Amino acid sequence: MVPALPLLPMTDVLISEVGPRDGLQSVKATMPTADKLRWIDALHAAGLREIEVASFVPAKLLPQMADAAEVVRHAATLSGLTVMALVPNRRGADAALAAGAHKLTMPVSASRAHSLANVRKTPEEMVEEVRAIAALRDERAPQVRLEAGISTAFGCTLQGRVDEDDVIRLAVQCAEAGAQEVGLSDTVGYANPAQVRRLFRRLRNELGERAGAAHMHNTRGLGLANCLAAFEEGVTTFDASLGGLGGCPYAPGASGNVVTEDLVFMFEAMGVSTGIDLARLVAARAPLVQGLPGEPVYGMTPEAGLPKGFVQGATA
Amino acid sequence: MVPALPLLPMTDVLISEVGPRDGLQSVKATMPTADKLRWIDALHAAGLREIEVASFVPAKLLPQMADAAEVVRHAATLSGLTVMALVPNRRGADAALAAGAHKLTMPVSASRAHSLANVRKTPEEMVEEVRAIAALRDERAPQVRLEAGISTAFGCTLQGRVDEDDVIRLAVQCAEAGAQEVGLSDTVGYANPAQVRRLFRRLRNELGERAGAAHMHNTRGLGLANCLAAFEEGVTTFDASLGGLGGCPYAPGASGNVVTEDLVFMFEAMGVSTGIDLARLVAARAPLVQGLPGEPVYGMTPEAGLPKGFVQGATA
Repeated sequence: MVPALPLLPMTDVLISEVGPRDGLQSVKATMPTADKLRWIDALHAAGLREIEVASFVPAKLLPQMADAAEVVRHAATLSGLTVMALVPNRRGADAALAAGAHKLTMPVSASRAHSLANVRKTPEEMVEEVRAIAALRDERAPQVRLEAGISTAFGCTLQGRVDEDDVIRLAVQCAEAGAQEVGLSDTVGYANPAQVRRLFRRLRNELGERAGAAHMHNTRGLGLANCLAAFEEGVTTFDASLGGLGGCPYAPGASGNVVTEDLVFMFEAMGVSTGIDLARLVAARAPLVQGLPGEPVYGMTPEAGLPKGFVQGATA
Repeated sequence: MVPALPLLPMTDVLISEVGPRDGLQSVKATMPTADKLRWIDALHAAGLREIEVASFVPAKLLPQMADAAEVVRHAATLSGLTVMALVPNRRGADAALAAGAHKLTMPVSASRAHSLANVRKTPEEMVEEVRAIAALRDERAPQVRLEAGISTAFGCTLQGRVDEDDVIRLAVQCAEAGAQEVGLSDTVGYANPAQVRRLFRRLRNELGERAGAAHMHNTRGLGLANCLAAFEEGVTTFDASLGGLGGCPYAPGASGNVVTEDLVFMFEAMGVSTGIDLARLVAARAPLVQGLPGEPVYGMTPEAGLPKGFVQGATA
């Protein structure tokens, strides 16, 4: 029995929290399951309505994710939350569906070198994996959404430049193979706002409503500027990580997910509703820090505090 | 004898470096004059064509700026450089003109509380100061440009919200009093991109070509996003500080000028020419660090390095 996809609240943008997956799999320490659940509860209490909670990969490769099924089962009890899980292959998808995930996300790299390093498959082989997982989903749980995230869409530390035609072609192939959303990821922090506008414009022209999330990194400080550029091109879903936890362990030099706290502050200050309460969001750092003692957390808004007289929900 | 204003190179945007003034006056230590000159030389060698090199204030208030005249005289020997000096009053303007500054900048705060704390004058009294300095300039050195920077234009740590009508009215008064450029400063890091667009649009509607620079802070991580928003509204001059040095010592909680290195990377990656060589710009951190041992410098691009295959001046 797979629960129905919860309705999203009426907000201007959807912030998709990736910390419990992207963040936790990038650090050496393993957060105890009980801390993960407390952290996810706190994120949910802050108003997050989509959280990537786990990755279904073999525990010997990523011991941080050994409790993926338990984490998904718990998260699925939280009201109104879309529980997302990363699945690199059919076996992972099978386990994620069995645990009750509402949405599966698959990393499909536009850089051949990164794809081989990350999942040991070519981009073309990953498109076939998307097709196979879409078929599995259709058969087992047709209400579960399938997302493909095009990694290294803006450049790659191994390959350097990534051709924009390759990115768009791969995105179209993923949609044709059955992904209902295809997002673009700046896995290594190479993107600039002009490129972000150009690629998301092409993506929307090709895919319409199937054009998905912007997953930006802050490696060179441009994370929020790139999110702004994507927003101005009509993107409404943004990945971010609480405390900026995470990056990609298989892309050397990659670091720095966009910080959820700073991204939410930017949008809310602009009068763009996120549905997220900033004070509670900052409070959700406590279980993260408790579960990963010694791990640095980032974010300028939590450090500086909110502006004097700032009222969330007031006009920008 | 005041030298003629040098011609600006043909670039898409002008990055106005404020570190030697805004940065140095915010730190406790005083950089030795020889180090300042080496730093300014390195900035010039990197391609910066406007540098705010000093503040003409009494040395007992700001011992870091006691050598202002000597610094201006040296900077004025650098080819093609617009040497800018901050002047809070007529006495400062007189000394700056005598030293050979090409451009004077005056801080005029839109927040009454900040204005009194910063220069012990009301905004209205500062407009009269602009008028007096414009008259002095007309008489002594008509080729010298006069800029007014409206501080706390996006909010104030003392007063909180700053009315947008107050900001625009003050900007118009400064222009009418003789300032050839009027910029807007996010002195305390409260600005958001929607507000930046709105205020610069109004500024340009009111002042046309007299609408001046965007001076953004990165206090809450939004510095580059705010610069991007200003750029998209037609702003072409951006203040920034090498290594992110500086803030405003009289506005509690203010910190974090936009980092020149990250801002230049953003524009160059977008294909927007700055005339600045990124490798030489990063090299200009050496004399800064040498002259201010122990002072932290910021910047994500210098830490992460340039993207693999990145060629400055190639299309974005």
